[in-house]
Amino acid sequence: MFREKIKVLDCTVRDGGLINNYNFKDDFVKAAYRAACDSGIDIMEIGKKLCVSDEYTREKYGKWNFCDEDDIKNIVDSHECENPPVVAVMYDVDRVNISALLPAEQSVVGMVRTACYVTDVDKGLDLVKRSKDLGYQTTINLMASSAAIETDLIEALQQVNGAKEVDYLYLVDSFGAFYSEQVTSYLQLYKEHAPDKELGFHAHNNQQLAFSNTQQAIIDGVNLLDATINGIGRGAGNCNIELLLNFLKNPKFDVRPIYKMIQETMVPLRDEIEWGFNDIYGISGHLNQHPRDAMKHRANPEIRDNCYDFLLESTND
Amino acid sequence: MFREKIKVLDCTVRDGGLINNYNFKDDFVKAAYRAACDSGIDIMEIGKKLCVSDEYTREKYGKWNFCDEDDIKNIVDSHECENPPVVAVMYDVDRVNISALLPAEQSVVGMVRTACYVTDVDKGLDLVKRSKDLGYQTTINLMASSAAIETDLIEALQQVNGAKEVDYLYLVDSFGAFYSEQVTSYLQLYKEHAPDKELGFHAHNNQQLAFSNTQQAIIDGVNLLDATINGIGRGAGNCNIELLLNFLKNPKFDVRPIYKMIQETMVPLRDEIEWGFNDIYGISGHLNQHPRDAMKHRANPEIRDNCYDFLLESTND
Repeated sequence: MFREKIKVLDCTVRDGGLINNYNFKDDFVKAAYRAACDSGIDIMEIGKKLCVSDEYTREKYGKWNFCDEDDIKNIVDSHECENPPVVAVMYDVDRVNISALLPAEQSVVGMVRTACYVTDVDKGLDLVKRSKDLGYQTTINLMASSAAIETDLIEALQQVNGAKEVDYLYLVDSFGAFYSEQVTSYLQLYKEHAPDKELGFHAHNNQQLAFSNTQQAIIDGVNLLDATINGIGRGAGNCNIELLLNFLKNPKFDVRPIYKMIQETMVPLRDEIEWGFNDIYGISGHLNQHPRDAMKHRANPEIRDNCYDFLLESTND
Repeated sequence: MFREKIKVLDCTVRDGGLINNYNFKDDFVKAAYRAACDSGIDIMEIGKKLCVSDEYTREKYGKWNFCDEDDIKNIVDSHECENPPVVAVMYDVDRVNISALLPAEQSVVGMVRTACYVTDVDKGLDLVKRSKDLGYQTTINLMASSAAIETDLIEALQQVNGAKEVDYLYLVDSFGAFYSEQVTSYLQLYKEHAPDKELGFHAHNNQQLAFSNTQQAIIDGVNLLDATINGIGRGAGNCNIELLLNFLKNPKFDVRPIYKMIQETMVPLRDEIEWGFNDIYGISGHLNQHPRDAMKHRANPEIRDNCYDFLLESTND
């Protein structure tokens, strides 16, 4: 599959950080940046940009939850690259301080992605507009669309379509609930009600479908694709970027630096934190549930593999 | 997805046995049979039917490589079931003794599946015909079609189409190399050159695509689907039957006995043998290679996770 407009966004650090409260060592983030550079990745999302508070401290929540300019600069300066990826950060509504954002021309960041639920689309669009005013590329990532009421979703899509400041509108399978036919039908809805927007897609691997659903999104015309090295990410994780690059066949990509990063950095990390498909996440995805119950179940060593019990609990009315 | 004609074939014991030389304890096979019965699985393949020789002994190769009538009967008699699955065995060309096969009416076996490479289709069809003469349901499983020369494949398909004794013709992704678009294009070829045959599909999970490719096969009209409990099978394993039953939504299926079997039997088994996706199999599948090099690599504890090295070795001309 080769289509020149397709861009790949590596959210290894941002989505992976959800597992360990963004407690990645700088060496890990540097290795991820180097892999993104050397493999020709278009955009690298390096963390969230929340504001520090008494509750949300850097010590407890990790520096990549806050993405200070100097911290990012330290990473970007660690590796020379002819065509470096655009650096992106993610905004969560109600947890940001937009007035602290530098104008894009003074920042090493080039893209701001705003994540919000469908019901928070007004707040999300406000953040998008302010980010665009400062000169950033922007996306709005509507989370958990599989759990939204369709009339709400349609209204949100129409609002997004009317906001010229939105560069990309994301379909996000937060619960890992989609089969390929749902990817197609949701994208149909997105294209119908937000026809002016370029689309992005963010998958989760609950049912071993993150990669295949990303392929389906490509077939259905999506040009911005999220993926992570080795599929790291919350719960069942994301689309594996190495599998995706193999699929894309675009000569601008080189998968070897990704596999090098996996061998040297991800393999040892697997001893510390867990991600990827397992039976519990498979059930959770099939039931279109928020992954919090599945994560809680996996966190208990006594019952973590008791998938039959989890199924009965989850379907007990 | 609901289509009444769709049948699910559980090859847990047969494909899983490729990992441990069919050294499953009877309790395991009984548990798999019970799960197949109670979940409404249509067909259960219980092993291979090779002939014993000085080289191929039951001690070394495990009883489910030979599938003696009494051994199967012992399993089937262990669990009462209103609508038991058809019991299937697999034939490998050049390793069978067809004269030892009982007529179907005297046997607990109801289906014989013949696996052969495209170049061995004549031998395969001979076995199919003899099996049909004895009254069995039959399939021919053309292995490694992704590595066959197309003119050879087309000729084989035409021969299969002319053999009225073949009930099902299988597309087999032996190397786990297919993306959904290849599933579609191969099935197109199969339908064009063997239009009279019902089709089956057997996936491997090298690129995390066994389940999604099986969905694609359904979309493209395939009505007999192979899958295994927890995806157990050689190398990266197969399509997970529990994910597939969730997808199919057919009221004749009940996924709960499968998850019960996973919790009670597959989880402990994972401590003894390995199956499922990993980076090495991902590379092997992408390169459309026989899994033997990947399996050898995984079997060496020193290098088993060295995916970058494996990629370089595998692409070194």
